[in-house]
Amino acid sequence: MKIDILTLFPEMFAPLQTSIIGRAVDGGKLQINVIDIRDYTLDKHKKCDDTPFGGGAGMVMMPQPIASAIEAVDPDHTARRVYMSPKGRTFNQKIVLEYSKDEHLLLLCGHYEGVDQRVLDLFIDEELSIGDFVLTGGEIPAMAVVDAVARYVDGVINEQSLEQESFASGMLEYPHYTRPQEFMGLKVPDVLISGHHGKIDEWREKKSKEITLKNRPDLLNKE
Amino acid sequence: MKIDILTLFPEMFAPLQTSIIGRAVDGGKLQINVIDIRDYTLDKHKKCDDTPFGGGAGMVMMPQPIASAIEAVDPDHTARRVYMSPKGRTFNQKIVLEYSKDEHLLLLCGHYEGVDQRVLDLFIDEELSIGDFVLTGGEIPAMAVVDAVARYVDGVINEQSLEQESFASGMLEYPHYTRPQEFMGLKVPDVLISGHHGKIDEWREKKSKEITLKNRPDLLNKE
Repeated sequence: MKIDILTLFPEMFAPLQTSIIGRAVDGGKLQINVIDIRDYTLDKHKKCDDTPFGGGAGMVMMPQPIASAIEAVDPDHTARRVYMSPKGRTFNQKIVLEYSKDEHLLLLCGHYEGVDQRVLDLFIDEELSIGDFVLTGGEIPAMAVVDAVARYVDGVINEQSLEQESFASGMLEYPHYTRPQEFMGLKVPDVLISGHHGKIDEWREKKSKEITLKNRPDLLNKE
Repeated sequence: MKIDILTLFPEMFAPLQTSIIGRAVDGGKLQINVIDIRDYTLDKHKKCDDTPFGGGAGMVMMPQPIASAIEAVDPDHTARRVYMSPKGRTFNQKIVLEYSKDEHLLLLCGHYEGVDQRVLDLFIDEELSIGDFVLTGGEIPAMAVVDAVARYVDGVINEQSLEQESFASGMLEYPHYTRPQEFMGLKVPDVLISGHHGKIDEWREKKSKEITLKNRPDLLNKE
């Protein structure tokens, strides 16, 4: 799977070299290209943003550098081209699975007030939001998408983990315990050290239900 | 405002040195401390995770290193202590405003299957999710929280920007246009170059409503 990320702040993507995602990249299962939009500006001062028509606060990213960058990295439009934006549909585990089947994903990160609307009209397939909050740019949301999707790249994560986690079953995950058996006066629930797998599964399912009912009852009503 | 971030992957937080958030830190308005949980383990092999009681995939972060790290950075519990977790309440712009009034925020990042439940029971005030998707760890969500909250630290962002953006008014933001006036055959809407501020505001409000109705009708029904 190939993911192109277009941004004015390529240095922000250092985290993707770490941990599990970094290992997927090193193993050749995932190719992540971070593209500096500024490299594609035709402006002699390398300017990539300008004031908005109609007035108002902030700067808007100019269409030319973005258009040229997209045409350079995805000339035949083989990629699903996504603009990270609070205006888009809300990212969720269903979209993660959908994207994880793509061969080629292009993530455009806005910054400041966002990008010129004509870039979206001419070049972008869909807008995607990671939630109902505003960030300084699309870079952190793009990292979230890469991280979530990369987990489904074959072999990146243990399959059992993928099956047991939150949202996979439509419920939140049960509590986890590890060593020591007693910590600051609190003991691991007896059932977890009973060795009785049936009872352990039963306890975990009960806990999942309890937590979902308490924190996110909306998930239980979904389907 | 002071934000402590506890993680096993401190190098992932390089992005916070960039752009607008980096400037807030440099200007002294925001203090971000990234704490390596591994520095607090009492295990001679610096081990911080172990297999889960009751079996199952993955590793669970052990309670001792986390507990010691929290006690070291927030001995008097002055911080709002937040665990980044898909099980938590869902982050939104209302929570951004709530957190932005805090003097001290502590963000605990889980990794692998998460942290031992007893750490949550004994040390954590609340669990926070950035959305209904699963990531390899809490680091990217913590960055999202820092970025969103830091925007409200006095002077970080132009106040007018904060008022006009998505969710501030309960609606998504209108489209933006900048130079050139014509790009690949598409012109900036006439009204935006009319100089008539009343009509521009009217057009923008109409567009906001249209986009919200199309992409997120649930926002309009909220209140």
